[in-house]
Amino acid sequence: MSKRESIEPYKGTRDFYPADMAVQQYIFDTWSSVAESFGFERYDASVLEPSELYRQKSSEEIVDEQTYTFTDRGDREVTLRPEMTPTAARMVAAKRRELALPLRWYSIPNLFRYERPQRGRLREHWQLNCDIFGVDHYSADVELIALGYHVLTTFGADSDMFEIRISDRGWLNATLANAGLTEEESARVIALLDRKDKIDNFDEELKKITTAELDFDSKQPSADSNLAHVIAGLGELGITNVTFSPSTVRGFTYYTGTVFEFFDTSGENTRSLLGGGRYDNLTEKFGGEPVPGIGFGMGDICLRDFLETHDLLTANITAPTVMVVPTDPALNINAEKIAQQFRAAGISTSVDLSSRKLGKKLSSAGDALVEYALVLGDDELKSETYALKNLISGSQETGAIDKLIKSIQ
Amino acid sequence: MSKRESIEPYKGTRDFYPADMAVQQYIFDTWSSVAESFGFERYDASVLEPSELYRQKSSEEIVDEQTYTFTDRGDREVTLRPEMTPTAARMVAAKRRELALPLRWYSIPNLFRYERPQRGRLREHWQLNCDIFGVDHYSADVELIALGYHVLTTFGADSDMFEIRISDRGWLNATLANAGLTEEESARVIALLDRKDKIDNFDEELKKITTAELDFDSKQPSADSNLAHVIAGLGELGITNVTFSPSTVRGFTYYTGTVFEFFDTSGENTRSLLGGGRYDNLTEKFGGEPVPGIGFGMGDICLRDFLETHDLLTANITAPTVMVVPTDPALNINAEKIAQQFRAAGISTSVDLSSRKLGKKLSSAGDALVEYALVLGDDELKSETYALKNLISGSQETGAIDKLIKSIQ
Repeated sequence: MSKRESIEPYKGTRDFYPADMAVQQYIFDTWSSVAESFGFERYDASVLEPSELYRQKSSEEIVDEQTYTFTDRGDREVTLRPEMTPTAARMVAAKRRELALPLRWYSIPNLFRYERPQRGRLREHWQLNCDIFGVDHYSADVELIALGYHVLTTFGADSDMFEIRISDRGWLNATLANAGLTEEESARVIALLDRKDKIDNFDEELKKITTAELDFDSKQPSADSNLAHVIAGLGELGITNVTFSPSTVRGFTYYTGTVFEFFDTSGENTRSLLGGGRYDNLTEKFGGEPVPGIGFGMGDICLRDFLETHDLLTANITAPTVMVVPTDPALNINAEKIAQQFRAAGISTSVDLSSRKLGKKLSSAGDALVEYALVLGDDELKSETYALKNLISGSQETGAIDKLIKSIQ
Repeated sequence: MSKRESIEPYKGTRDFYPADMAVQQYIFDTWSSVAESFGFERYDASVLEPSELYRQKSSEEIVDEQTYTFTDRGDREVTLRPEMTPTAARMVAAKRRELALPLRWYSIPNLFRYERPQRGRLREHWQLNCDIFGVDHYSADVELIALGYHVLTTFGADSDMFEIRISDRGWLNATLANAGLTEEESARVIALLDRKDKIDNFDEELKKITTAELDFDSKQPSADSNLAHVIAGLGELGITNVTFSPSTVRGFTYYTGTVFEFFDTSGENTRSLLGGGRYDNLTEKFGGEPVPGIGFGMGDICLRDFLETHDLLTANITAPTVMVVPTDPALNINAEKIAQQFRAAGISTSVDLSSRKLGKKLSSAGDALVEYALVLGDDELKSETYALKNLISGSQETGAIDKLIKSIQ
């Protein structure tokens, strides 16, 4: 290792400089405001979870191969959370008696997976997670999909920019059982369906599992099925960019009913923008009564790609309103006193504390998108009369601080 | 291990249920708004950092014993960040040429340390981190301490509820060198000073290091020293709860000038509320020109204890404004349609999708601090005339949805 240290972040993670963070913050703020407009309450937990939370009899290897798992010095196995649903289910199970169901919960966790970084998939990403606990009626499925839809339209998307693919694990399980497949064969077919879009020999692979006739594209759920109700309910709410998609299964084994994914229709971004489903038995493994649940996750990386593709990306720039510019560092503390008066009036204000020349200070205030500059020299200090220059219009106002504050307000 | 899974979070970490999260969110929002009122821009990075970022010749063991460090399958050593300053310095060094100095950066990272959890110190906590890069003038020290001060007063604290202890590493180093101590002895004295409040045999331990006369309490920095300027500058801004404290040194070896800590004066909370200092050489180790820096961190756990002690704790409760209450689940989708109209008008609205009785639905809307309830039955649906009940005043208004929306607005 050379003496000079690396300036790179850890592999597969991102540094958010202020310009990137402004975009990230815009995404987080939009997520929050739409979720709260639907009455969802925010929760959170640590990124570290006991590894056993992710272990399931059927897929032991998931914990070991695709997650960051390590042993602490107290010999506890710890995992950096790869998804949020198990955490939410754990928390609901822990306070099952105190919490008044139904619950609408959202969170914006960072999640980790141990993989080779690639387009749309890094080792760390953030996700909007929304879950409804305690409602087994299909209207919860409708509401949650409608929430995902409104998140995208709030970012400015039109409904023809994305497609909602929907299926039902209950329907799929019944279809496979009716075709005579064993449970083990069904599980293999579901795993294969989950990879359908990523492979080009689906039919061939399917024949290796079963010789039963399984033409998924011709299958339809009946009109009084749960899935038909969900699709009709979305139609009632004006959401019609919905396609029944038998190959939409979602990887997680805990789904029991409706499953759905949102996809960009532009062809530019092939990964799902949002994915979720109903999991009515997830809290059972913590003991106590089961609580029906349905939820989705929407990742920041795919969303950002989608917004860029459709030219919808914007940012919450947080430039201060006023920059106080002392002509000499000897006046920096005086400048801070003036800044304090502006801030006390609710006006965000910064001070140029550098030893640069005045012109350079003013041009960099303009570059930083500051609205007003107030130049402070000995004369201004003595006369208590200051010039406030509007850096956008170029106009200027002169007077005592009180007067200048009022003119900004 | 029993078949039933644990419902506990990982040792030394916290679950944030909505009521806790509302407090946490209030703290984060206040941190953000005060930092932005001073013109600070938000940044962030991954909680995972290459371990070498925390390694220093002088304190190799810090990485191994007090942090979460592990080796990934690519044989990289990775650490869960224990503090944010090295990350900020790494990021500044990486884009040194593109970034227009001076910079004011803030972040609200979660940080990890591997310790036995105790009061005021858990294994994971969140911190407000504020740094100014590129200003070596003492006015940056003044501004940063003033920012910390205004964070606390914005939470409602009076200046007599906390004390600002301040010293200067440059002054301390010179004092120790003048007393004839070697560099190694000085380092040991500084480490001992850092533990002064936690041990009761300070004088005895000091004598083991040096026989030089070091009566810290009688030492004063000279009137034209950096520290005297900082204290005077704070006085100019009306900040006078400041004490020169020679035993305030801060643990980190990278500090080079002003160091400061804020303490609760109530005696209830003995850990520092905020700590920081000047580190003018930190970016050097990444190569390139050095960039002067000064920063502080303020942890959420000690702050929460402080706010509770002084009865200043409040929360951003995020209850929806309206709850639509269908008399029967068969009307759930109709209720969602009405909720959609309220949301489109900017009114946050939830729907009770449960199968509970009407009275139970209404009482739980009241418990959740919802302002208005709209009951939806077949009659209302047919007549398109709805009753909107104010759950706080008890008053009620009747009419079409448009009219009810206007009355809320």
